[in-house]
Amino acid sequence: MNSETRKRTVFYISDRTGITAETLGQSLMTQFDIDFEQVTLPFVDSVERAEKVVEQINRLAVSGAPRPIVFSTVVQDDVREYLRKSSAAFFDFFDAFIAPLESELAVKSSHAIGQAHGVGNRQNYDVRIDAINYALSHDDGATTRHYDRADIIIIGVSRTGKTPVSLYLALQYGIFAANYPLTEDDIMESGLPRLLQPFRQKLYGLSIAADRLRAIRNERRPNSRYASIQQCQLEVLRAEGLFGQNKIPFLNSTSKSIEEIASTIIHAFGLRRRVH
Amino acid sequence: MNSETRKRTVFYISDRTGITAETLGQSLMTQFDIDFEQVTLPFVDSVERAEKVVEQINRLAVSGAPRPIVFSTVVQDDVREYLRKSSAAFFDFFDAFIAPLESELAVKSSHAIGQAHGVGNRQNYDVRIDAINYALSHDDGATTRHYDRADIIIIGVSRTGKTPVSLYLALQYGIFAANYPLTEDDIMESGLPRLLQPFRQKLYGLSIAADRLRAIRNERRPNSRYASIQQCQLEVLRAEGLFGQNKIPFLNSTSKSIEEIASTIIHAFGLRRRVH
Repeated sequence: MNSETRKRTVFYISDRTGITAETLGQSLMTQFDIDFEQVTLPFVDSVERAEKVVEQINRLAVSGAPRPIVFSTVVQDDVREYLRKSSAAFFDFFDAFIAPLESELAVKSSHAIGQAHGVGNRQNYDVRIDAINYALSHDDGATTRHYDRADIIIIGVSRTGKTPVSLYLALQYGIFAANYPLTEDDIMESGLPRLLQPFRQKLYGLSIAADRLRAIRNERRPNSRYASIQQCQLEVLRAEGLFGQNKIPFLNSTSKSIEEIASTIIHAFGLRRRVH
Repeated sequence: MNSETRKRTVFYISDRTGITAETLGQSLMTQFDIDFEQVTLPFVDSVERAEKVVEQINRLAVSGAPRPIVFSTVVQDDVREYLRKSSAAFFDFFDAFIAPLESELAVKSSHAIGQAHGVGNRQNYDVRIDAINYALSHDDGATTRHYDRADIIIIGVSRTGKTPVSLYLALQYGIFAANYPLTEDDIMESGLPRLLQPFRQKLYGLSIAADRLRAIRNERRPNSRYASIQQCQLEVLRAEGLFGQNKIPFLNSTSKSIEEIASTIIHAFGLRRRVH
């Protein structure tokens, strides 16, 4: 196989989880319209491990594949120096920013393995667990008992993405997110469901394009009334009417990722993350 | 108040969700032993919004606070150029890497707003939803029916962190993670629980320090036998014995973040992410 037909391999290398390296590298690579393979190598926290990594990269480089690319967030100087010897194109996050930051802050950096996504100080861990437990016990209207403790209550008809967004807010931000499904009864009445009324300030609506909703529902209950386009159109229309009449902010989730929806909600309510 | 006593403000600015900018900035700032305020400004995707942002930054700068710091992942050239005019120290992720990457890849980048965390191509979205639904329906041993579909089955005694890790694997990686709680009966018997035996290759154990387990359980059921140090020690000891006898890989989650546990499991099993 000649190198033209082989995909380039992108390595994300980190002395911890690799999440930062992946995030950065993927964000950059999406700027280029090329196919590539991705390999994450976490916990490269010693020169011995770096040696193995460099061997792995160099094997690929001599096999006729296009020159590999490395995105590194390795903080330890000796490990980083070793990695730099590979034959890959080496993009080092630490090198690019830490020196100018040291100069701006007039403080030396610790050059210690990053704490991001790390040792999860116990408080962070506890906050996330509490938020996840809250999201799970308040998922899909399971209970409305502790809505006073909610940071936000996501409402919408069935299958608009309430559950994943609630869990994401809990896991990533430590935010207490309940979610409540608008039933057919709810949306055919004129006002806001009674049990939501005391919490109007916490409500955020999710809507979705009717044809997309139809497709999602059809996966679950093929050819049901629930999944019919008429039903989906009606529910979406009524739900958006409800949001409008009650001045409940909402967004259309159709072409949005979970991250985008979560980020939009946080921004709309001025919520602060509890997890750092 | 003089500037010595005021915290520095760090802005994460993005034309999308701000997640990459936050990840980048936080990872760098953890290298410095200083306190700072954090402000995330997502969806800065027009010059008009950039103007508002620059006003916000400059107001802070003239108020006597230490010079603000900006971490930007803004891709659009005109927006980025505008942001650069603020009086903050400006660290631009795009500038730092995109030109050398263009040269390495011999391709021009699109300079289009990033797709990372973005438009969630539909396939990604569907994979994540399926994985979340799987994790929820196979949480805490709720059902073991579809263990054949699991990528991984996390086992451990009550309160070792199985649920958050399973959900994290689903949300971030699209991995199908079931979890099964080892009951007292399970760990007092000599072998692996019968229903787990066919899936031995998929099992991963979570353990935890007994005193930490005691503290967590005590939050839930204060002064119970369940939360007693004797019970916690016994369960941890027996569970680790079970892992050892059955050659089930496991880790001690005591001082690990959810990200670290997830990343370790993925690495141990050579799993590949289904979400990009």
